[in-house]
Amino acid sequence: MFITTLIFLFALTIIYNIAHDPLSVSVGFSIIGGLITCKLVPEFKESFIKAKLTGKDLAKDDKEPPIPECMGVICATVYLVCMFFFIPFPFMEWFSGKGKISQSEEFHAPTFPHHKLGEFLAAMLSLQSMTFLGFADDIFDIRWRHKLFLPAIASIPILMVYYVNFGVTHIVVPIPLRFIFGRIIDLGFLYYVYMSMMAIFCTNSINILAGINGVEIGQSLVIACSIAINDFLFLNDADPAVEAHLFSLYFILPFIGVSFGLIIYNWYPSEVFVGDTYCYFAGMTFAVVGILSHFSKTVLLFFIPQIFNFIYSCPQLFRLIDCPRHRLPRFNPSENKLEYSRVKMQKPLKKPASFVLDLFELLRLVKVDKGETSIEVNNFTLMNLLLLKIGPLHERTLAILVVVIQILASCLSFYIRYHLVHFFYEVV
Amino acid sequence: MFITTLIFLFALTIIYNIAHDPLSVSVGFSIIGGLITCKLVPEFKESFIKAKLTGKDLAKDDKEPPIPECMGVICATVYLVCMFFFIPFPFMEWFSGKGKISQSEEFHAPTFPHHKLGEFLAAMLSLQSMTFLGFADDIFDIRWRHKLFLPAIASIPILMVYYVNFGVTHIVVPIPLRFIFGRIIDLGFLYYVYMSMMAIFCTNSINILAGINGVEIGQSLVIACSIAINDFLFLNDADPAVEAHLFSLYFILPFIGVSFGLIIYNWYPSEVFVGDTYCYFAGMTFAVVGILSHFSKTVLLFFIPQIFNFIYSCPQLFRLIDCPRHRLPRFNPSENKLEYSRVKMQKPLKKPASFVLDLFELLRLVKVDKGETSIEVNNFTLMNLLLLKIGPLHERTLAILVVVIQILASCLSFYIRYHLVHFFYEVV
Ligand SMILES: [Mg+2]
Ligand SMILES: [Mg+2]
Repeated sequence: MFITTLIFLFALTIIYNIAHDPLSVSVGFSIIGGLITCKLVPEFKESFIKAKLTGKDLAKDDKEPPIPECMGVICATVYLVCMFFFIPFPFMEWFSGKGKISQSEEFHAPTFPHHKLGEFLAAMLSLQSMTFLGFADDIFDIRWRHKLFLPAIASIPILMVYYVNFGVTHIVVPIPLRFIFGRIIDLGFLYYVYMSMMAIFCTNSINILAGINGVEIGQSLVIACSIAINDFLFLNDADPAVEAHLFSLYFILPFIGVSFGLIIYNWYPSEVFVGDTYCYFAGMTFAVVGILSHFSKTVLLFFIPQIFNFIYSCPQLFRLIDCPRHRLPRFNPSENKLEYSRVKMQKPLKKPASFVLDLFELLRLVKVDKGETSIEVNNFTLMNLLLLKIGPLHERTLAILVVVIQILASCLSFYIRYHLVHFFYEVV
Repeated sequence: MFITTLIFLFALTIIYNIAHDPLSVSVGFSIIGGLITCKLVPEFKESFIKAKLTGKDLAKDDKEPPIPECMGVICATVYLVCMFFFIPFPFMEWFSGKGKISQSEEFHAPTFPHHKLGEFLAAMLSLQSMTFLGFADDIFDIRWRHKLFLPAIASIPILMVYYVNFGVTHIVVPIPLRFIFGRIIDLGFLYYVYMSMMAIFCTNSINILAGINGVEIGQSLVIACSIAINDFLFLNDADPAVEAHLFSLYFILPFIGVSFGLIIYNWYPSEVFVGDTYCYFAGMTFAVVGILSHFSKTVLLFFIPQIFNFIYSCPQLFRLIDCPRHRLPRFNPSENKLEYSRVKMQKPLKKPASFVLDLFELLRLVKVDKGETSIEVNNFTLMNLLLLKIGPLHERTLAILVVVIQILASCLSFYIRYHLVHFFYEVV
């Protein structure tokens, strides 16, 4: 308690003393956000249980009491409130009059940068919409099909601001494809479709690589840290993109803060669950940052495990293969370990289904057990695949494994982004 | 069903054909918002009951089944989504290139009006925050003291935009007070405190004049229509404030639409309850419009019944007089009418309490029954006062009475605003 107060005061001091440096203020708010989350989550446990927002931990003994669900909403709310208080800081020099006096137009416009403030507000609006919709989803269990479009609605504000602030809709074609498309294509309206698809993908892909203790926050933290590291790489340069990367850091750092505050309670053995709210909130943060800071491709690179998991899941998501309500690994109480879960289908299979099964078997991505009248196959998720290849694992071990894979994927992404990129683009 | 589709198509046609006139588009979206609310509310009833978001109707027989609670969140969500789609329209002329070509700087800046977009985004952000916090309040039952500050947090975005867009913090002193203060006072920081107090007041004052079927939406609709009428009065002039009043209309019209969609189910006998969510959402809409369109005093004039109810309630709100959890009128099943409810206090009373009681009795605002060891008095709300003066009323009659009082108060407000104002200010 004493130490917490000390850290809190320390963070406040940072903010107060270096209000002219928004980046340090952002660090201060991240620390404060983390501490507040850390304090509020146990306080709200009772209220969540009273409001019947609870879930059963499917990978534990049956005797365990129900666990408060969708605590991600606390973490997201703390984040949003922190951001409300943070937003004025990047504009401090205009407020204090400096921005108006200085006539050097190199970096600072002589008048207030309303378009910049618009970016912040739109980003906040999109994040808040997504949190709100995620919370509604946790409470009302919105149907899968409708769910898919919620992020598209939530991304409208950032798309609008993108339109009026940048309006850049052409993309530079990778070198190997230029003989077909030329050097630059103007995607026009399609670029906006691409951006809202990105919001849909980021939010849902984290939501489907989920289900065991700590794995949602674990992967999100790795992605967030990767984005932050990438941003810091640009800050050291005298780069024209420095403003965009600062923008990204302002949104990512507090996200890292509040996520740390929540993972303390969500790591194995979970005292609280994060709910769809957290997955949506995390995914939208990444999408917003990628879109408004113009490095959506780099953000997608950090999603390699999610992309793999999504493609691997497609046969079940699109119902080629039967999809049970839960595709979590199965808990084996006698060994206290998780095994891969399976789905049973009646024979004969439809053509596309058996084609997919054969293809995936050829790639050694599934294990098919053919019975007399039915076929059993493991559920198509990354976690089941890991358990299939490595054998039963303890829940905590599996969560660590997923996080480690995410870290390795980030290393690979940095390698692609800063070395292999020369094969595709001229720029660094 | 057929008629609904027809109206829907009609509204879409309006929007499509007169996209250049944002006001007509706003009318179109109001109609669409109302229809969608009207359609979604019955569809979501089951989900709300499943999610245990239900309440008992305290002014009905005990046998009635529980009723879905906090349906205001549907209405607010439809409103927000409609506004998301509406926001681009006022900026159409810039999008279509006209804004950039026309060099007449009289009304249209040659470049995109980022500060205007910022106003929209900030208003949306505040409304959405308030809806979100109201929804959280409905689910978790946040403590009364904390609740009071939620609107202050939600108003941060509009205050920030007010600061950078207008920054006007001086007020014109009413003529009778000028001998003390002079003609103009600069309130400075206090002006921002005043604005967030206004947000706190608007949201909570609607929330405490509530509790019987249809009364929350009824009063909000009267206030909203009054604001809209006031806006239209300014549109006819070649007034410099025309832009501000258009802004107000863009936010108020869809609000009227979705509220009509909801009151169909919430009017006596209620099929659904609106919850704190609706009250917060409605109050914040009025506060946002009042603040960003610079007629907060006029908005407060439309709140006369709420102001009376608030001042009258103060002794109980600040716990001078005991305050039971519910201060609703009491249902008398034998007559099927509502009677005023009472609170019992042990003798002897504390000094301030008996002073307040004596004062209010002198003003004939309460009825005190003095017993041997205890004192009984009616609860201090406008509705109890009405029942005390008029006698028991049917629930629907009481709701109509409150709405009629609200309408009369609005007429009085218009009289004050456009006639008596000469005693206080030089302007019209
Ligand atoms: Mg769900
Ligand atoms: Mg409540």
